[in-house]
Amino acid sequence: MKIICEKEKLLKGINSVINGVASKTTMPVLEGILIETNEKEVKLTTYDLEIGIEYIIECNVQEQGNTVVNAIMFSEIIRKLPDTEITISINSNNLLEIECEGSLYKLATMNPDEFPELPKINIDNSIEIEQNLLKNMIRKTIFAVSNEENRPIFTGCLFEVKNNKLNVVAVDGYRLALKTNILNSNTTNFNAVIPGKTLNEINKIILDSFDTVKIGISKNQALFEMENCKIVTRLLEGEFLKYDNAIPSNWETRIRVNKNIIQNCFERIILISSSSIEREKKYPVKISIEIGKVVISCTNQTGDAKEEIIVETEGKNLEAGFNPRYFLDALKVIEDEEIYIEFGTNISPCVITPIENDEYKYMILPIRMKE
Amino acid sequence: MKIICEKEKLLKGINSVINGVASKTTMPVLEGILIETNEKEVKLTTYDLEIGIEYIIECNVQEQGNTVVNAIMFSEIIRKLPDTEITISINSNNLLEIECEGSLYKLATMNPDEFPELPKINIDNSIEIEQNLLKNMIRKTIFAVSNEENRPIFTGCLFEVKNNKLNVVAVDGYRLALKTNILNSNTTNFNAVIPGKTLNEINKIILDSFDTVKIGISKNQALFEMENCKIVTRLLEGEFLKYDNAIPSNWETRIRVNKNIIQNCFERIILISSSSIEREKKYPVKISIEIGKVVISCTNQTGDAKEEIIVETEGKNLEAGFNPRYFLDALKVIEDEEIYIEFGTNISPCVITPIENDEYKYMILPIRMKE
Repeated sequence: MKIICEKEKLLKGINSVINGVASKTTMPVLEGILIETNEKEVKLTTYDLEIGIEYIIECNVQEQGNTVVNAIMFSEIIRKLPDTEITISINSNNLLEIECEGSLYKLATMNPDEFPELPKINIDNSIEIEQNLLKNMIRKTIFAVSNEENRPIFTGCLFEVKNNKLNVVAVDGYRLALKTNILNSNTTNFNAVIPGKTLNEINKIILDSFDTVKIGISKNQALFEMENCKIVTRLLEGEFLKYDNAIPSNWETRIRVNKNIIQNCFERIILISSSSIEREKKYPVKISIEIGKVVISCTNQTGDAKEEIIVETEGKNLEAGFNPRYFLDALKVIEDEEIYIEFGTNISPCVITPIENDEYKYMILPIRMKE
Repeated sequence: MKIICEKEKLLKGINSVINGVASKTTMPVLEGILIETNEKEVKLTTYDLEIGIEYIIECNVQEQGNTVVNAIMFSEIIRKLPDTEITISINSNNLLEIECEGSLYKLATMNPDEFPELPKINIDNSIEIEQNLLKNMIRKTIFAVSNEENRPIFTGCLFEVKNNKLNVVAVDGYRLALKTNILNSNTTNFNAVIPGKTLNEINKIILDSFDTVKIGISKNQALFEMENCKIVTRLLEGEFLKYDNAIPSNWETRIRVNKNIIQNCFERIILISSSSIEREKKYPVKISIEIGKVVISCTNQTGDAKEEIIVETEGKNLEAGFNPRYFLDALKVIEDEEIYIEFGTNISPCVITPIENDEYKYMILPIRMKE
């Protein structure tokens, strides 16, 4: 094998595949990048048996060949080389040689035949979406994915295609995030639950651009295809929440508030309410709504905090307890200037939506307050 | 106590004193900031029994008083409040009240009488120096301070005033860094060894400005005085190295090299040579100098690395082993474009100096290489 490639192109490929490398594994070959040449291109592949990532780089292939090299070491060396052409070859001792100006590095290689093949996918359904839109959908929902492995289905996001809309939904038993986007072409309805871990990786790889990504779904796998890059992931199996019924459609109390102002209030009050997540679940902040104002307060041994905001209110007065962290998670990803927060009783969930559109809904369950 | 103060001023004061707060202590009052009013100003003080920091803020004092409040909680709340006037007072329950627009926070306080007094200093000798110059002197030496507590004198930097020059010296048994600056006024000669920890704090507080800092030395203490801020620290006791004799004044081999080029070579080769500092000490890189070029190389089970640079050489050919980390530490803080590296034999130290001036010298001991 011998290839000559611009550093920048090579590094872009490495950066895309590096997160597919297994971190704790008994198979050293999974800590490597599979490098394969094919005519005038080189393909980089990583696979941790859950997520597989392939990236194709056009380059000058002088001699065909395949090898596997430790991903961390290879990426660090390429990253630090000067911004020029790099020659990569295998020498007679089966070491990978990296040459660039006055630098020559030789790295141990592994047998490419031991690198497991990525699963073959027979795509049943697919959609295309702009990368920036997918990025936004992931960002607005991923934080509400459950960390609890005892109900694995909720450690992923539901991708639901229905009536030419894509709904992405995450839920962890305490809150639910739903982001909707209209699809441009007519599409068959389908569902798939994609692991949160995969979506985090995809979010790193896709760009804030109008380029599209094609999402293909088979029975057990999903495939995300971009220009040079393919990502294969297993799907989560099980029954996802019927989220339609979970989100209240009526409210008893509603406030309209500037997003940044209430976000700042929660960021301050959380200093008092929390010293650990466990505490936040047990010691909620109290939200009190009277005509024309909302007061957020909490008291504990550290001190005492009260935040008062003048807002537009509608409906009944209300007092209810909430985990302020759950508010902050959503407020941080909302770009809209103004939001509605809708409440039912003090034991029913509240719902946050931007006032300008209903393509994002975020629901939080209250916490019963000690009297 | 009741004061009204602009957030920005208050936060600048808190940021300056916060690093004097004790982190692990059996005296909770040392985790606090002492807040004292005095006519039209408020003084913030922190003291961990080694370093004491005082900062004075002009503000509207409506009622005199003193208190101590947990430093972390106080600073986090002030940091997150809006950028406007903040009212701070003590209520009838002895809680510190922080009021700002719609926000009201109440924090537990501690007894100010329990806060230990900062040591009184009778200054024997003093100098004045621009803050940016002191910052530069600290930055160019502090990394060579020893971490080994069994020889405490080397965990600090020597501040030596001699012939109207200030020399700052750090040494850890493997390398030595010396930065010199000419002083503007006639000054009596003196010596003091200031703890590395204190210098790190001072470096965070002083600005990259032409404002001066006055350094006063007593028998056991040093005092750093700036416009609003005073820092008191104990001195280290013991005999510092006679560094004059340690730095070789002759060389057998000398190279003149672009600083960035050789720094990049070391940054790459360290990827191969090191997986831990312990290994770096045991497995040096080899520096080979022949007419017109220097080759830096190393081999171990990870791989094999060779960096070749075309340089100006003078004197004999040479092969010697060095810890690449020690080169990088100094190369990172040198701003000059070109440097000399001077060598003696393969068992004598090498010396790095910028070619344009001799106000910085950095010496590294070699490592004996296995044959």
